[in-house]
Amino acid sequence: MARAITVVEKGGPKAIELLQAVYGHTGTAYRVGITGPPGSGKSTLTNQLIAHFRGQDKSVAVMGIDPTSPFTRGALLGDRVRMTAAEQDGGVFIRSMASRGSLGGLSYATHDAANILDAAGFDYILIETVGVGQSELDIASAADTVMVVLVPESGDSIQAMKAGLMEIADFFVLNKCDRPDSDSAYAAIQSMLNLRPQVKGEWLPGGVKAIATEGQGTGDIAGQISDHRNHLVATDAWQERKEQRLQCHVKEIVEKTICSELWHNSGTEQLTSSIRQVLEGELSPYDLARSIVEEYREP
Amino acid sequence: MARAITVVEKGGPKAIELLQAVYGHTGTAYRVGITGPPGSGKSTLTNQLIAHFRGQDKSVAVMGIDPTSPFTRGALLGDRVRMTAAEQDGGVFIRSMASRGSLGGLSYATHDAANILDAAGFDYILIETVGVGQSELDIASAADTVMVVLVPESGDSIQAMKAGLMEIADFFVLNKCDRPDSDSAYAAIQSMLNLRPQVKGEWLPGGVKAIATEGQGTGDIAGQISDHRNHLVATDAWQERKEQRLQCHVKEIVEKTICSELWHNSGTEQLTSSIRQVLEGELSPYDLARSIVEEYREP
Repeated sequence: MARAITVVEKGGPKAIELLQAVYGHTGTAYRVGITGPPGSGKSTLTNQLIAHFRGQDKSVAVMGIDPTSPFTRGALLGDRVRMTAAEQDGGVFIRSMASRGSLGGLSYATHDAANILDAAGFDYILIETVGVGQSELDIASAADTVMVVLVPESGDSIQAMKAGLMEIADFFVLNKCDRPDSDSAYAAIQSMLNLRPQVKGEWLPGGVKAIATEGQGTGDIAGQISDHRNHLVATDAWQERKEQRLQCHVKEIVEKTICSELWHNSGTEQLTSSIRQVLEGELSPYDLARSIVEEYREP
Repeated sequence: MARAITVVEKGGPKAIELLQAVYGHTGTAYRVGITGPPGSGKSTLTNQLIAHFRGQDKSVAVMGIDPTSPFTRGALLGDRVRMTAAEQDGGVFIRSMASRGSLGGLSYATHDAANILDAAGFDYILIETVGVGQSELDIASAADTVMVVLVPESGDSIQAMKAGLMEIADFFVLNKCDRPDSDSAYAAIQSMLNLRPQVKGEWLPGGVKAIATEGQGTGDIAGQISDHRNHLVATDAWQERKEQRLQCHVKEIVEKTICSELWHNSGTEQLTSSIRQVLEGELSPYDLARSIVEEYREP
């Protein structure tokens, strides 16, 4: 499995062959996105969830998507899932992936890797990512249920709610609830959630209090995941999410295919041979771009 | 100018028309990239540099590229350039841009906006960005001189040097040198710089100590920028950088054009009409992607 994901991360014809073969076996795993600011305790919560699901004899795969940066490498997902015990357990698989160089914030290979894990028969796929860049929007397209982890201090919670996280969160976890201002932070989250127009039959995101380091709240979190899943299944919304996810994935494949075809062939030749003309002002960058596009479309 | 940049940020035919018109007037501004971890004092240094260049009667435009995130919005570039005095000065222009939704870490519109500022006659364009995601690599392609700002604490400096920043930095600034461990941090930077193979005629990145809040080091920084610029001009490397930058820009235009043509037309139709077949396992995502690419190329 680890080798298959490596193949997929590298891309190319081998990856596509593998993914084609695997695709028909996907569709059973449940994908949970876990996002939140650095230091909010996502990895600790992930560990708790692994233990919880293992206790129910469910298999769990974890993908840690790290928006790599030379400055923050290892820091953002610094307390990354590390589980000597869990890693020796055949029902758990853990993999980190870097998002550098991908088109979006999430690794391009995230969907592909998740498909491999899905086909391998895992019951749950936990996709953990730090909310930096646009990764927190991508996670909404990659997961069935998205949990957003917040912490009491620094007004992050309120700011995050305002900044559109309401849109992607299927529920919120307020972690580190042993901190002094957790009650007011939780109340603030609740009051913002209550502001949402309630549409009959639609899922209403809720909030869960947790102290991940002590395992408090894990049961409630798993309960929220399960409630949301039941809701999705009952309302056919799961099918809709899968369809959206698939559309997004096909779009990625198309764009990646075109870019690789383009720049491995005539595009680069045209670019290097005509760039002088642009530098000398005989041709604008837009004219050159136009002619590269046309050459690609009608060679 | 602000309106022109807004047009460019929105994109579309109007933007291209404007940029075509402007392009012939570009090529005189000197572009300085300023990157470093959050809290390293980039904005304070930027303010100091503005004052320095204004003292030489040079005009300065500042572009703050903010890798937006609901969690960090306003925090990463929180102490963003704010200059009541400077803003009333006609020789200074300041603009922040969000990088969300762009293909790379830097805003897609960065190159375009820089071209507008260049054509408007600014002597210096300072491009400030936080090193998160891949923005610090993009800045290397957008700037003539890249300065990387580090701070003594937390071993960031060493980690950053190891993590490939050596490749993009034309010089380093160790800011906050009033802190206790600044001497050892500076020595560490120097010794890593000394490990670089010295090729005759090639620029050798150096280090500058600074205490930006007190204005210490600004003259040295400006000196490094000027030395590097002279080196680029003398060795024709400036021309080479411009060429690389232009290539990168044309590539962006090509990819953006193709994606917009593709998804505004037949691509989306094909995607939505065939996605059911993929969901039902009759077609793989890769086959669908392939047929969308082919339809685009040979409609």
